[in-house]
Amino acid sequence: MIEIYYHPLSFPSLAPVFTAEAAGIEYATKLVDLSKGEQSSAEYLAVNPFGKVPALKDEDFALAESASIMRYMARKNQSELYPEGIHAQAKVDQWMDYIHHHIRTNIGKVHFNRSLAPMFGAEVDEKSLSDGLRFLANNFPAIEDCLSQQPYLCGDVMTLADIALVAALEPIDISKIDISEYPALTRWLADRRGETFYTNVHSHYGAELGM
Amino acid sequence: MIEIYYHPLSFPSLAPVFTAEAAGIEYATKLVDLSKGEQSSAEYLAVNPFGKVPALKDEDFALAESASIMRYMARKNQSELYPEGIHAQAKVDQWMDYIHHHIRTNIGKVHFNRSLAPMFGAEVDEKSLSDGLRFLANNFPAIEDCLSQQPYLCGDVMTLADIALVAALEPIDISKIDISEYPALTRWLADRRGETFYTNVHSHYGAELGM
Repeated sequence: MIEIYYHPLSFPSLAPVFTAEAAGIEYATKLVDLSKGEQSSAEYLAVNPFGKVPALKDEDFALAESASIMRYMARKNQSELYPEGIHAQAKVDQWMDYIHHHIRTNIGKVHFNRSLAPMFGAEVDEKSLSDGLRFLANNFPAIEDCLSQQPYLCGDVMTLADIALVAALEPIDISKIDISEYPALTRWLADRRGETFYTNVHSHYGAELGM
Repeated sequence: MIEIYYHPLSFPSLAPVFTAEAAGIEYATKLVDLSKGEQSSAEYLAVNPFGKVPALKDEDFALAESASIMRYMARKNQSELYPEGIHAQAKVDQWMDYIHHHIRTNIGKVHFNRSLAPMFGAEVDEKSLSDGLRFLANNFPAIEDCLSQQPYLCGDVMTLADIALVAALEPIDISKIDISEYPALTRWLADRRGETFYTNVHSHYGAELGM
């Protein structure tokens, strides 16, 4: 069975878990306790030499990096989340890249400075915080335009791109990132958060840490 | 013919151009002059609604985001740069993601603060600069380990992952990012910079701007 190594405070960890649920893939989660430095243990580095979460093991095959794990699971299960055809796949790729480089990165800046830094006593970087908010204001409109014209980022069916966006948006509540000025995105997110791929995960995710 | 929209100061723009050369794909480059704000023109937004470079046009098909364009070109031409097989593709994906998220992003921080900010009179962000250098010191060793064991990131043949790394490393000279403590990476880079996919591009790239 596929094993997904994760930590509940790592939101890139969530995307592969959502993907497994949405594609109907049997999987087990394995907690890597970052607070104990388990990501740097010899045992974990044998799975992911990068020392980061998430990672995947599928029998003898080990893989790192969230988006790569998502693609691998979808391909292996011939899931429509990563549809056949070079044009369709290219559009899924394009939106995954856009979300990871221009949305998730900047949500990360805001989330770190508003939530994680205070939680762990780290210094708040006001410049990084304001950069994150400014770039999000620049980069959300393309998503709003898209979702105001079609139900999902790549058209009429959900793909890996949508899952990447749901995962990237996970910290917006705790970190008070307001998306209400984007009504199509707000509605889309509420709909996705009502689906079983999401509710199933949130009924158990992080239970090992008592979260 | 494939058209690649680029700007010579955008190093993500370089990766698709290198890919086209390495895969033997006929292409034309189209300069998007960022200094004149051409990325926000109605004409360009029709190609790439994100208003960023690079972008690709292949007849009626338009695509944004560097890594997506690389995959699209390799798939379309059935290039071994993105080999068949889900395990082989997953490993290329993994390294592309690692390079883009953990190397290119941090080289970008150093490059912006050491080169671009002084060039354009922007404020230098010392925290971002030191973060970039610190993360690079954390993230280069996995690449060094890999390249000390095999000639390319994914084994015995060059893939999109190697091209992504060549492009990500473009600013290291101008921004004085020292990689000499990584001998396998240093040797690998010198070898790649001697190949025709690289030298062909540098014989004309940026000529429109007199660079």
